[in-house]
Amino acid sequence: MKAGKIKVGLIQTSVEDDKARHVQKTLERVREAASRGAKLICLQELFASPYFCQVEDASLFDLAEPIPGPTSSAVSAVAKELGVSIVVPLFEKRAPGVYHNSLIVVGPDGESLGLYRKMHIPDDPLFYEKYYFTPGDLGFKTFQTPEAKVGPLICWDQWYPEAARLTALRGAELLVYPTAIGWHPGEKEEYGASQLSAWQTIQRSHAIANGVFVVSVNRVGHEGPTDGGLQFWGHSFVADPFGVVLAEAGEGEETLVVELDLSRQEYVRRNWPFYRDRRIDAYGDITSRFIDRG
Amino acid sequence: MKAGKIKVGLIQTSVEDDKARHVQKTLERVREAASRGAKLICLQELFASPYFCQVEDASLFDLAEPIPGPTSSAVSAVAKELGVSIVVPLFEKRAPGVYHNSLIVVGPDGESLGLYRKMHIPDDPLFYEKYYFTPGDLGFKTFQTPEAKVGPLICWDQWYPEAARLTALRGAELLVYPTAIGWHPGEKEEYGASQLSAWQTIQRSHAIANGVFVVSVNRVGHEGPTDGGLQFWGHSFVADPFGVVLAEAGEGEETLVVELDLSRQEYVRRNWPFYRDRRIDAYGDITSRFIDRG
Repeated sequence: MKAGKIKVGLIQTSVEDDKARHVQKTLERVREAASRGAKLICLQELFASPYFCQVEDASLFDLAEPIPGPTSSAVSAVAKELGVSIVVPLFEKRAPGVYHNSLIVVGPDGESLGLYRKMHIPDDPLFYEKYYFTPGDLGFKTFQTPEAKVGPLICWDQWYPEAARLTALRGAELLVYPTAIGWHPGEKEEYGASQLSAWQTIQRSHAIANGVFVVSVNRVGHEGPTDGGLQFWGHSFVADPFGVVLAEAGEGEETLVVELDLSRQEYVRRNWPFYRDRRIDAYGDITSRFIDRG
Repeated sequence: MKAGKIKVGLIQTSVEDDKARHVQKTLERVREAASRGAKLICLQELFASPYFCQVEDASLFDLAEPIPGPTSSAVSAVAKELGVSIVVPLFEKRAPGVYHNSLIVVGPDGESLGLYRKMHIPDDPLFYEKYYFTPGDLGFKTFQTPEAKVGPLICWDQWYPEAARLTALRGAELLVYPTAIGWHPGEKEEYGASQLSAWQTIQRSHAIANGVFVVSVNRVGHEGPTDGGLQFWGHSFVADPFGVVLAEAGEGEETLVVELDLSRQEYVRRNWPFYRDRRIDAYGDITSRFIDRG
């Protein structure tokens, strides 16, 4: 365990239709975060593209890239230039007809430290992800950057305590959730506040249950038809290992740079020693779909 | 699944030193809740006694009773008289030297529907539970009352997503958490707010992750030496299956009676179908103590 302090950067943006221009815009924000001292910088889910999953359209698979590919290489070059680590979510083309919602963690020498593929794939009106993304087959992972051991997950993974637990059990000091979540504009007035609260609550709970920092990076802006579409709600945030929110963005473009005291993990886990008392002898049924006996 | 509405009662009290008198006081509150329409009434952890785990003292095992025993019989008689179900947490004497922190769910005919024994046992300054309680050996359970399928857990179980998940997977419509949690008075000013927030957040997260109601019943009052001891923080509450807090008590004695629309479970799970997408093929390592590979 490292007892040092680290600054993390969260890049919350609206997304341009033109991919090259959007990647450049994001890399400018990365430079800004680095200039403010961030050593680990986290981009939002599928950062290079609009949230294309609002429709099922086979031509949109053209947005995917192999890894490594042009976008990952562009980000890696900037990571190396600045000497920072970057969490880079990408639409991955793995093989003909095999696409993933993925991310790589790039280290400060510009090399990829490894790949994570989104394990939990949603499918809801305007979030037609099961059409595009083959479920991840790499399991839950952590990656050792120079500053911290990072456990990345992606968006819908947020709602699964198992994903947070399995990543934290692998020694993560922080869980990072790139995400793309928003309101159906027609629902916002009635359900908007409870949806945002549920989203923040479940992620804070992973910090608490596991004694880890949580870094959640969401996009902003309206995408899709003006009389429908999705309004991405932003509110990127960082929670400490007891679930205390250290910083939270609003609903516009914003770059957060937040200092984490990694020694806080040991402190919190010592005082709230949940890991000590897990009943691993009694958790086997968690691999059941449902348990029909009472 | 039942689509009906049900009123639940939460009995939040301070605890009298005299056991017989405290049991009578609690049963008066049960009558009050029933008169207000409650059909399922939940008592607080180890309801019949002060929180004796502040010291390790072998004579305090005398507070335990077999189940059935005098206290469970007194509560059962009232359940039958009123025609209500009651969640009854007790200090169980199972055999010489084998004691549990347990509960029974009593049905409206006064019969026990079954027993649950606290699975996760804490041990912290003034919460010396590992001295008193043998860890539960019955696993996670649900009990079908006439109104709803109840999944009971106890206090420290609150902090474990696995416990909530395994109980909910057995068909619980509501999770019930009798508890005894409070502040060290000397810590309250600095840590009180974040501790209360973490406690409420983790339980609301179980509602969200599982699409179940959560009913949490805590005691109130100061117990122990006036220059130390514990100040139990109350704040008993009910959350709906999306984590929305429907009712919350303060820090004094209070009886909450809260109407639940059980059809809300189906509604929430349809719109936030987390159970559909669980990666049961990838959760096996949850039975690991820790995972030393990255």
